Amino acid sequence: MNILDIIAKKRDKKELNKEEIEYFITNYTNGEIPDYQAAALVMAIYLNGMTMEETTNLTLAMAHSGDILDLSDLGTVVDKHSTGGVGDKITLILMPIMAAMGVPVAKMSGRGLGFTGGTADKLEAIPGYRTNLSIEEFKNNVKEIGISLITQTGNLAPADKKLYALRDTISCTSSIPLISSSIMSKKIAAGANKIVLDVTYGDGAFMKTKQKAEELASVMKQIGKLAEKETVCIITPMEEPLGYSIGNTLEVIEAIEALKGNIKEDVKQVVLELGSQILKLAGKGENIEENKQKIQDCINSQLAYEKFLALVEKQGGNSSYCKDTSKFQMAQYTMDIVSSKEGCIQQMKASLMGKASCLLGAGRMKKEDNIDMAAGIILHHKVGEYIQKGEKIATLYTNKEDTLKASLKMVEDAILIADIKK
Amino acid sequence: MNILDIIAKKRDKKELNKEEIEYFITNYTNGEIPDYQAAALVMAIYLNGMTMEETTNLTLAMAHSGDILDLSDLGTVVDKHSTGGVGDKITLILMPIMAAMGVPVAKMSGRGLGFTGGTADKLEAIPGYRTNLSIEEFKNNVKEIGISLITQTGNLAPADKKLYALRDTISCTSSIPLISSSIMSKKIAAGANKIVLDVTYGDGAFMKTKQKAEELASVMKQIGKLAEKETVCIITPMEEPLGYSIGNTLEVIEAIEALKGNIKEDVKQVVLELGSQILKLAGKGENIEENKQKIQDCINSQLAYEKFLALVEKQGGNSSYCKDTSKFQMAQYTMDIVSSKEGCIQQMKASLMGKASCLLGAGRMKKEDNIDMAAGIILHHKVGEYIQKGEKIATLYTNKEDTLKASLKMVEDAILIADIKK
Repeated sequence: MNILDIIAKKRDKKELNKEEIEYFITNYTNGEIPDYQAAALVMAIYLNGMTMEETTNLTLAMAHSGDILDLSDLGTVVDKHSTGGVGDKITLILMPIMAAMGVPVAKMSGRGLGFTGGTADKLEAIPGYRTNLSIEEFKNNVKEIGISLITQTGNLAPADKKLYALRDTISCTSSIPLISSSIMSKKIAAGANKIVLDVTYGDGAFMKTKQKAEELASVMKQIGKLAEKETVCIITPMEEPLGYSIGNTLEVIEAIEALKGNIKEDVKQVVLELGSQILKLAGKGENIEENKQKIQDCINSQLAYEKFLALVEKQGGNSSYCKDTSKFQMAQYTMDIVSSKEGCIQQMKASLMGKASCLLGAGRMKKEDNIDMAAGIILHHKVGEYIQKGEKIATLYTNKEDTLKASLKMVEDAILIADIKK
Repeated sequence: MNILDIIAKKRDKKELNKEEIEYFITNYTNGEIPDYQAAALVMAIYLNGMTMEETTNLTLAMAHSGDILDLSDLGTVVDKHSTGGVGDKITLILMPIMAAMGVPVAKMSGRGLGFTGGTADKLEAIPGYRTNLSIEEFKNNVKEIGISLITQTGNLAPADKKLYALRDTISCTSSIPLISSSIMSKKIAAGANKIVLDVTYGDGAFMKTKQKAEELASVMKQIGKLAEKETVCIITPMEEPLGYSIGNTLEVIEAIEALKGNIKEDVKQVVLELGSQILKLAGKGENIEENKQKIQDCINSQLAYEKFLALVEKQGGNSSYCKDTSKFQMAQYTMDIVSSKEGCIQQMKASLMGKASCLLGAGRMKKEDNIDMAAGIILHHKVGEYIQKGEKIATLYTNKEDTLKASLKMVEDAILIADIKK
């Protein structure tokens, strides 16, 4: 077997077998196959596609390219993953709720690139919170308080890390076999036995249309089935940002408020959809509608909020910031965006809002960049709301004054206010 | 402009404009664009193709990636190129004929990889012959004796060198836009104003079918037209080796014999076809059939043979070897292949013959390998000939005794003798 024949086979639109896929993944991971040969193969996969069997074999090969976490002593661990968006603070709200309802939560989250930080970055906005626990500490926390949220650790799916970085540099990100195998390989390596996926679509997501999101969801469900990991997907739009805040500290504050009961409608819908599926997979209730009601009750009982405080304390964070969110350090510079006319907000493009928040300092352009925890955007209105001329629509937060002007322009471009019909 | 957008455009089957192609070639040549990004783009070109305009722009960008040789003071220089084959010694025979007939010959030839050496390697089989002249010496020789044959020198089409090597390692050699731009960029950089191409097809060629060869020829003719370099193509089969010898010294001897008048039929046909086109392009005769007769007359007059001797002497070679070819050092070990039955030779697969001669030492497996000038194969019969059981079909020549057995097996596999019909 050699890589030239494997590239030629996929180039000619033939199906790669399990051994060929494993040969590629093993030798790419250990550096025997150079990036340029991997790049040619990835482009051929992008253009000629993969069958379900190939995609599943790719997923499993990547999952097994490093360690596979063994969480079997924690019970039925349900993992949750979102294909990404702007203002997506769902993990911060949903996982403490699940833990409060008796579902063991042992979740690793990524760091962000573009837009804002990832969940791990957001948690670090809480002074003292440690995301880099050892696997042992991680599992112990789940055993003791039912929840641990940390960053990706250990040697999990190193093949995916390499391929993901490569895809980014060769315009091959938006391929369904490549996206689905990347997500599922990480979940399998992270020890999940059941998986709930939030597949987003629209302006602020990888998948631009609902149809593409459904296609991706279908492929991931089939991988889950073939890999014997029960997998459920929900499909959610990501046209405008999720909730009212974008940025690390700002989103943590919104998440804490939500856990205290002040949860915004769009955020609540996603929490209820995902949470009701997780409860079902965890054997905590077959009826989705009843599960949603139980989640609502859990939020109202403050038990989820208390679970969040316990999590923060357990991982070294200063929970007094959560109890009084006014203690969080806010950005030095702010700027309001006001409406130039009266009318109904028709559009708030998530992609431009994400780019603007990144420019303000909330995200990384390159892996090495530092994140400004306090930077971001607060929305005062959302799509569908009616506003007066001169009314505040959004406020920008940054510690880099020089970025305000360009960010302001981006956010203004993102917002479309419909003319009043005469 | 950036490479990610360029890759994405070709990935999406859109047409790249001149600026984008130039941006890629310039930045790939200077190392700004890494191999893995080039590999992804090359695979996208392989799979999604290129329009004639894109292919021409790619050709010109590669031609201009280094120096362009100025041969304008030599008159109308007609360049000749073959897309390759086994036993192809046409340049060694044809170019002295053309020079003897008053067409200035200033030709650079490549070294070989696989099969046997290139023309430059073959010339070095003549003791003392220098292929690495300076451009000044090269042009002076043409001025003084009307011919110079050297190896590729100077910084000609460095982009093609890099891309050619890359294509080889990512299974992207057999793409018409990539092959045609590679050939034409080298010819343009080498200063040709008129180009005659021998496009081969069949078992021993890049193009496996006549149709593919015609397609490649058509693309190269159109590039020539758009680049204002008059280009003529002839299409020749390469199912069995050309002539009766394969290997460097062995082919030089066959070429010298041909120039002395003992020219084999298949070799003669190619020489007449190409030569008559070159004479026409050089303004030495409009009528192709008359040109062929003139070439035949030139061979018979020994003027071409004398031109070859002058060339060898001018470039430091010992012409006594040409006058008495028995002086050439022959290989230490030989082995005859005899027919196991009576019948008509139906097939002599050029690819297997080429591989066997390479194994015997006549070619390079890797760029760094040394060539054994004396190694190769002599054919005693060709396809269509009737032979008796026990008759010699071919003889292997090598200095590496241990390669004889495997080579023998390859050559035997290459030869098919039809059963006698009862």
